[in-house]
Amino acid sequence: MVDENTEIDVKMERLIASGHIKPISEELQNWAIPEVADYILRLDKPHQILVYRALPRARAADIFAYFEPEDQDAFLEALTDADTRVLLADLSPDDRTAMLEELPATVTRRLMQLLSPEDLQESRQLLGYPEESVGRLMTPDYIRIRAEWTCDHALAHIRKYGRDSEIFNILYVTDSNGLLIDIVRMRRLIMVPPSTIISDMLNYQFVCLSAYDDREVAVEQIQRYDVNALPVVDSEGVLVGIVTVDDIMDVAEEEATEDFHKGAAVTPLEMNYTAAAPAVLFKKRIGWLVILIFVNLLSAAVISNYQEYLQTYVALVLFMPLLIASGGNTGAQSATLMVRAISTGDLKLNGWWQAMAKELFVGLLLGGAMGGLTWLLGIYRSGLDVAMVVGLSMLSIVFVANLLGVLLPFTLSKFKLDPAVASSPLITSVMDAIGLSIYFSIAVAILS
Amino acid sequence: MVDENTEIDVKMERLIASGHIKPISEELQNWAIPEVADYILRLDKPHQILVYRALPRARAADIFAYFEPEDQDAFLEALTDADTRVLLADLSPDDRTAMLEELPATVTRRLMQLLSPEDLQESRQLLGYPEESVGRLMTPDYIRIRAEWTCDHALAHIRKYGRDSEIFNILYVTDSNGLLIDIVRMRRLIMVPPSTIISDMLNYQFVCLSAYDDREVAVEQIQRYDVNALPVVDSEGVLVGIVTVDDIMDVAEEEATEDFHKGAAVTPLEMNYTAAAPAVLFKKRIGWLVILIFVNLLSAAVISNYQEYLQTYVALVLFMPLLIASGGNTGAQSATLMVRAISTGDLKLNGWWQAMAKELFVGLLLGGAMGGLTWLLGIYRSGLDVAMVVGLSMLSIVFVANLLGVLLPFTLSKFKLDPAVASSPLITSVMDAIGLSIYFSIAVAILS
Repeated sequence: MVDENTEIDVKMERLIASGHIKPISEELQNWAIPEVADYILRLDKPHQILVYRALPRARAADIFAYFEPEDQDAFLEALTDADTRVLLADLSPDDRTAMLEELPATVTRRLMQLLSPEDLQESRQLLGYPEESVGRLMTPDYIRIRAEWTCDHALAHIRKYGRDSEIFNILYVTDSNGLLIDIVRMRRLIMVPPSTIISDMLNYQFVCLSAYDDREVAVEQIQRYDVNALPVVDSEGVLVGIVTVDDIMDVAEEEATEDFHKGAAVTPLEMNYTAAAPAVLFKKRIGWLVILIFVNLLSAAVISNYQEYLQTYVALVLFMPLLIASGGNTGAQSATLMVRAISTGDLKLNGWWQAMAKELFVGLLLGGAMGGLTWLLGIYRSGLDVAMVVGLSMLSIVFVANLLGVLLPFTLSKFKLDPAVASSPLITSVMDAIGLSIYFSIAVAILS
Repeated sequence: MVDENTEIDVKMERLIASGHIKPISEELQNWAIPEVADYILRLDKPHQILVYRALPRARAADIFAYFEPEDQDAFLEALTDADTRVLLADLSPDDRTAMLEELPATVTRRLMQLLSPEDLQESRQLLGYPEESVGRLMTPDYIRIRAEWTCDHALAHIRKYGRDSEIFNILYVTDSNGLLIDIVRMRRLIMVPPSTIISDMLNYQFVCLSAYDDREVAVEQIQRYDVNALPVVDSEGVLVGIVTVDDIMDVAEEEATEDFHKGAAVTPLEMNYTAAAPAVLFKKRIGWLVILIFVNLLSAAVISNYQEYLQTYVALVLFMPLLIASGGNTGAQSATLMVRAISTGDLKLNGWWQAMAKELFVGLLLGGAMGGLTWLLGIYRSGLDVAMVVGLSMLSIVFVANLLGVLLPFTLSKFKLDPAVASSPLITSVMDAIGLSIYFSIAVAILS
């Protein structure tokens, strides 16, 4: 037995040293569950995880169940070890993805209960749910009851285990496999006769989130149903946690901050401003600024086309900043109105024609008012001919910019891009080039 | 008696017809409470309110208490009548303010319980709390218990009256005058022996909101304490309602939308985009656009200063849009980072020098990178001299714009203005003029 162990150990050691998941997984396929379990417990902590994570999900659950309770806890501690994290960080990206497959529900639950709230935040990635997913948000502090219990039994259970529950007014009813089957409000439990069986109170209608859902789904659903918490199930419908409204508020704030940053052509920081080092800030900002320089080269190209013409009518240069800035400002306004209306759910994506029809009209009003004002400024400054050119240009530029601001966010969404990227700086830079083209074309037509 | 009534009625009728609050209030000062109560009930509905609202708060509470229960309900219905609203709308603004003084707590509570949630939304202004205040947000669906009760008594009370409570896990403990003295968690009530006296469980430490607080205070406090609800007290410490986290989420979303709109130089719509008529959209947008036109006239003035010079070096016009747009973009980035960090509480107002120190460095990095790139573009396009001018200009403009973006939001806050007004369009337009000055000054220094 000792010999055999050694032989296997040497072979496995080689595979583990190679750091690749697949061969380990293949080797273990033929082992019995107790063998694998014993073998894992013989390893040092970081390697325990590597091997455990190489197992298919169903087998992993069985092996975890085979561990003695104290081994389970030791194993879960290993899972959250600093060494483990180093090991995971060193893996190649695709191996890491394979490693971080969804954990069995029993392990997920036990792990979440074991960790302090602070550790939980850091270790949630170990659960295997993608970044910005509901699985990364959920907490283990909820009360689970069984459908076959009486209310009295349930209340006794709650008195015993409910102390740490974050949500006290909603109880989650599961079957013997941990499958979520309904939710019950605490107030009903208190108000019915104590001998009532829980299952008689159920209507089997409830809203729940998948641990794989994007966290924005959680924000939407909690806002939509006006509830304090929603249950989270894994890919098999097993209850693994809950998401509470106070966590959701933090998410909503983070998402709004991301949209603000995108709207100003800043790649979202993913941390507080005060926590960001200058090098990080530089990196998050320079990308868009350089892209925008190239967009602005379009404007330079337009000007270079009309360079000689401008030498004759240098008065036209005077109005350049005014006209192109007004285009940018108008476009930024309508784009921001669209982006925000889309992100709060006020405007659906198929509602673009509605917004368009409205903005055709608004654009005419804005263009008329601003064109008129510019015409007056033009007369005062440079006479009737130039006034006509700048007034007409202002009207056209404002009208076009307004529509561009409407269409760009919808177009980006259509191509599965984030509409928030239709930032004020981007619209401004694009409108600079379009605005100059409009301006010079009108000038040539009227002044020549 | 009949005669006397008639005489009084005629006199009061005259005062009421005049529509002024003060003389009514003075006249009623000398009446006994039962007289006023009887007199009010003799009036038709809209005038009931006018007279009632003319009373000082303490007297109003006494008179309400004097009404029979059915008269109380009839009276409260009158308070929410369409006619009442018309009457209130017709008053002069200062009279209306006097009319809408805070209602007595008993009336507030009864009124909120009487109304359906939909009516409540519309009628909250009748409670006398200012717009966007906590008083306009609160709901009546909470459970009040008394300190001298036993837990058993409290649970019996909850079984009887707790059915509609929105918040079930927190109970609000008041004294016989309705003064909030503490809160107790439902779980504790269930977990202690049933004969425990509530007051033995209290520590008299709790967080509460004033009905006069700005609703942003409610958002901050609920986020800070991570709770599902906070109690709301009136100006005398009497519990009048609670604010729940799901209402707070809607407020947070509205506030974020307002900030987005301000950031794009749109006056906040105060309604959904889809609900806004074109005329409303025009009105909310044209104001800033016209102001920005006048800011842009600064750019025109700068150009007109250098007009003859530009005729000699028309190549300089080529780089104008590129340089001023980059300044605007950089400023928009840093301003947005500041505005958002201030509004999420990440940056305190006295932290401006911290942000400043960081951004001095970030600005140099950005300016260096973008100046270098522009220098290369300049060489490629117009030779070494012009390259030196545009490269140096880009560096200076980006550096200055970055700092302007930091300082403007803090300066606005300092003068009690909303930092969100430091919008991208405003920064862009200001930077256009500054950028042109920098550009032409450098050009004159190098090329002449």
